[in-house]
Amino acid sequence: MKKFVNNVDNMLTESLSGFEKAHADLVSLHLDPNYLTRKDKAADKVAIISGGGAGHEPLHAGFIGKGMLDAACPGQVFTSPTPDQMMAAAEAVDAGKGVLFIVKNYAGDVMNFEMAAEMIAMKNATVLTSDDCAVINSTYTEGRRGVAGTVIVEKCVGSIAETGADLATCKALGDKINAQTASIGVAFTSCTVPAAGKPTFEIDDTEIEMGVGIHGEPGRKREAMREADTMIQDMVDAILSDLGDKANNAEVLLLVNGLGATPLMELYLIYNTAEKLLKEKGITIARSLVGNYTTAIDMAGASITVCVLDDEIKTHWDSPVHTAALRWGV
Amino acid sequence: MKKFVNNVDNMLTESLSGFEKAHADLVSLHLDPNYLTRKDKAADKVAIISGGGAGHEPLHAGFIGKGMLDAACPGQVFTSPTPDQMMAAAEAVDAGKGVLFIVKNYAGDVMNFEMAAEMIAMKNATVLTSDDCAVINSTYTEGRRGVAGTVIVEKCVGSIAETGADLATCKALGDKINAQTASIGVAFTSCTVPAAGKPTFEIDDTEIEMGVGIHGEPGRKREAMREADTMIQDMVDAILSDLGDKANNAEVLLLVNGLGATPLMELYLIYNTAEKLLKEKGITIARSLVGNYTTAIDMAGASITVCVLDDEIKTHWDSPVHTAALRWGV
Repeated sequence: MKKFVNNVDNMLTESLSGFEKAHADLVSLHLDPNYLTRKDKAADKVAIISGGGAGHEPLHAGFIGKGMLDAACPGQVFTSPTPDQMMAAAEAVDAGKGVLFIVKNYAGDVMNFEMAAEMIAMKNATVLTSDDCAVINSTYTEGRRGVAGTVIVEKCVGSIAETGADLATCKALGDKINAQTASIGVAFTSCTVPAAGKPTFEIDDTEIEMGVGIHGEPGRKREAMREADTMIQDMVDAILSDLGDKANNAEVLLLVNGLGATPLMELYLIYNTAEKLLKEKGITIARSLVGNYTTAIDMAGASITVCVLDDEIKTHWDSPVHTAALRWGV
Repeated sequence: MKKFVNNVDNMLTESLSGFEKAHADLVSLHLDPNYLTRKDKAADKVAIISGGGAGHEPLHAGFIGKGMLDAACPGQVFTSPTPDQMMAAAEAVDAGKGVLFIVKNYAGDVMNFEMAAEMIAMKNATVLTSDDCAVINSTYTEGRRGVAGTVIVEKCVGSIAETGADLATCKALGDKINAQTASIGVAFTSCTVPAAGKPTFEIDDTEIEMGVGIHGEPGRKREAMREADTMIQDMVDAILSDLGDKANNAEVLLLVNGLGATPLMELYLIYNTAEKLLKEKGITIARSLVGNYTTAIDMAGASITVCVLDDEIKTHWDSPVHTAALRWGV
């Protein structure tokens, strides 16, 4: 395993410390239990908290800041954070209007966030993201997995919270976006979890894993490597089949997300083809995002996410955001 | 070779088309000859143009926009653009105050930009970047290579041009920044040029290439893989040795740059150690940037860049910028 690591046990802490130092204007790091908070505590708004196993950076800590998250709770790599982390984070950022947890649908995360939700005193609610249309049930999931669409939920829910919206309104927007968002990924290589020291799965030089999860979970099928456009066609078809009528003549946000080791040059090639295919179906790409936003450590591969927009979602996507990984309007 | 590619010959064009579509508010793509320009032509300022072989994305097209570049000329992967590209770009963006070319010091780029500079009618000047302190002379270079420090030059020169500064003033700032910036990279894996279809160089699972170039050129030496902190120590030592007295008690910008396949989690770990080592030397990290800004396609590895700041550079680093890859204040 070739990684920038001193001691695998300290890798997360050292990385989080670097993150805090590089973004000292935006975030504060709290250790034992581990959580990060927005530097200047926001007043009079619902506090938005996310979290999950590390290894998906910039998700979630990279989205802490004005217009997005108030706190994030990172677990060890691909390992759920524990309830004490969410409880401490909730305590730190609650501003009297309640706490909304945004949780990707993995069994460990769901269980631990639920435990925290039951134990904290302040009112709270949860948005569970499950945008991955590749498979139902998987290595770590009952139901669908939450993947890159989570970024869109966090951006828009963070925005509406900033307007002073109440807890139910924030949750309703998150649930709505999740219900009209679909994603699918493809892997060319496995990721390597530092503590394991070797690739999570074996894959031949001539194979791809279509529908891979962001932890290297199996997808729909192991296929032969082939030209980009036919892979992208299959991904777009899977997404449109999942969205069904919701995508008819819709305006959408198209997110092309790198899984860690795939260059921007390839991500923009994917965007080019996906955009063309969607247009041919009468769909308008009204917003877009291309880059590494929800990664699987060092996996070569990419995912495509389509979120069906409406005026409310567009407003909250466009609003100012100031985080380490997404920033505009400020 | 596993890449998102249809036909290697069309890969760059398809990617550039995707880039234009995803950033239609920022850039216009012109084909044959290939160059990209700022969507809304800026008036009454020196036009800033950069370019070079593709494969280093987001450099350079990702830096087109308000406060940074007016145009970029992409060559094929790791291949210099041709003079007709620079000439067409200069013609398109010249606003009567002259054109400044920002060129990384590689023989092909230097020759072709020089030819363009001689053939265009408008007044022009060139800033040659050569921040890589790893080696003198290399596969494609006489003298030092221009690497990630180029981003700092492009940001600050773009900013001062926006104030209406004349050509000589823009060039002077670029030359100053280049003279007080040093970088060094390390590779864990080779990159794979799509047209070659196989890794540029062989490297064992137990080896690293210290001082690697952004095209996979040889560095200072092939070394044994080891813990992160000793690699980072060697990199910081090389940079400080190169900067010499300029770094004494200085304020600096610390840029930790991923070469393509290295996760953010590792880049922030590098930042954490580099920051500590610089602080121990009495150096203040006044600005920072962490991410993939000057890549070597899909190389696993990273580079560290230190730029010695002064009030002028800080002002121009902080000023608003709106590009695909760097955005703040707008």
